[in-house]
Amino acid sequence: MNNQNPIGVFDSGLGGLTVVKALRDVLPNESIVYFGDTARVPYGNKSPDLIKEYSMQITDFLLERNTKIIVVACNTATALALDTIQDKLDIPIIGVVKPGIDSALKLTQNNRIGVIGTISTISSGVYANELKIKNHSVKVTSTPCPLFVPLAEEGWLNELSTKLIAKIYLEPINKANIDTLILGCTHYPLLTEVIQEVVSTKIKLVDSAQAIASETLKLLMNDGLLNDQNKKGALQLFVSDLPARFEIVASRFLGEKISNVEKIQLG
Amino acid sequence: MNNQNPIGVFDSGLGGLTVVKALRDVLPNESIVYFGDTARVPYGNKSPDLIKEYSMQITDFLLERNTKIIVVACNTATALALDTIQDKLDIPIIGVVKPGIDSALKLTQNNRIGVIGTISTISSGVYANELKIKNHSVKVTSTPCPLFVPLAEEGWLNELSTKLIAKIYLEPINKANIDTLILGCTHYPLLTEVIQEVVSTKIKLVDSAQAIASETLKLLMNDGLLNDQNKKGALQLFVSDLPARFEIVASRFLGEKISNVEKIQLG
Repeated sequence: MNNQNPIGVFDSGLGGLTVVKALRDVLPNESIVYFGDTARVPYGNKSPDLIKEYSMQITDFLLERNTKIIVVACNTATALALDTIQDKLDIPIIGVVKPGIDSALKLTQNNRIGVIGTISTISSGVYANELKIKNHSVKVTSTPCPLFVPLAEEGWLNELSTKLIAKIYLEPINKANIDTLILGCTHYPLLTEVIQEVVSTKIKLVDSAQAIASETLKLLMNDGLLNDQNKKGALQLFVSDLPARFEIVASRFLGEKISNVEKIQLG
Repeated sequence: MNNQNPIGVFDSGLGGLTVVKALRDVLPNESIVYFGDTARVPYGNKSPDLIKEYSMQITDFLLERNTKIIVVACNTATALALDTIQDKLDIPIIGVVKPGIDSALKLTQNNRIGVIGTISTISSGVYANELKIKNHSVKVTSTPCPLFVPLAEEGWLNELSTKLIAKIYLEPINKANIDTLILGCTHYPLLTEVIQEVVSTKIKLVDSAQAIASETLKLLMNDGLLNDQNKKGALQLFVSDLPARFEIVASRFLGEKISNVEKIQLG
């Protein structure tokens, strides 16, 4: 494998751009190929079978672009499809769940951790199970927040209604005496301000984008796959629908002008 | 065509059940085959090409079930795909747009009509154009309400946050001095209470479900296709994902126990 090959990143929509941003900060000279499945967003209220099928289609697309590692920047796809994809790959793959868990376990002092995510991610129990495997004494409180993805996609990041919705969703979190809250969906960092406003200020939020970027750096280094060229890496963005709308949001997200989003039909 | 053949109805998700309910009231001895595209909901933020493709796949599925008429119970699909489907059919097809427009034109007294719907429906301009074709002097105010579909699918029909969101979305409607408001999305009748609370009490809401049921009765009668058997019609429900969840919602919607929802993969 050539170390100048790109990193492949995918998500159900635009949420995974939080991961792209973190990767660009930590690994500025790596090239990135991103796929956002905007035709089929949201994943969070779909069945496990469907999420596996979609994730495999996207992985095949990224492999055709010669990616040297695949970063699953979608918690729902990580929770439900990571094992299936891993079985079929001979390049490294990394999902958002493990780095988030590792960060949370480092941060917590009272061993009470909260997790929020989509219905599918929370129902899969992946966060609670993995946290307990790594630390038996940890107590986990999980709750789904299904409207957070449409609110983030709509750009309603700081409206009063968003705050009210957050208050209702986060009531079990506020009651559970946790000190660390995992944002178990890559869209949720967009709502950090509202979430932090609604939960106790003592609660530390874990945004797994940072954690997954550090983990990717480690993996590439271990496998001798770090790009050793000293120039800024390219960024190629693909979506399954509405590239023009995606360009606007991606530019805002990444703080750089994005104008080359391509539409690709999968499946 | 046998007049005992079923009526085919489709929507992007569960919103079309408002149309099924109206059809069951007006035409109790007609059999109905319903398809809800729950794997690909929402349609409202997807591109016209994709909506045409999905609508054609569903139409083919309904034709295989020998439907004698097709009712497009989705405003987005009606706005963007009705003409394409019509060209390929030799049975009657009816969409939700025309009956809603006819009702609104009958109701308005000041010739100022409001329309709310998904981004795709509103951007298509279909309501404003058709209203003006039928009545040149009508003044139309249209505005998209993208979060209404996820709120309805989540069942948050009467929360304070739903009301706040409605207030923001409906501000242009309240400013426009309209006397009639078309609910240009079959999900929106679920939010009637909140919508009526937010807009002036003088504004009459047009729920196109009733209108499309009467129009279907008329069409079947004209074509000699009314079912003349004197027994309650069957109801078959198909979805593209998560049938169990759909059964719960459908039972609540239709006021009858629904337990036979089948999952079908299209495309």
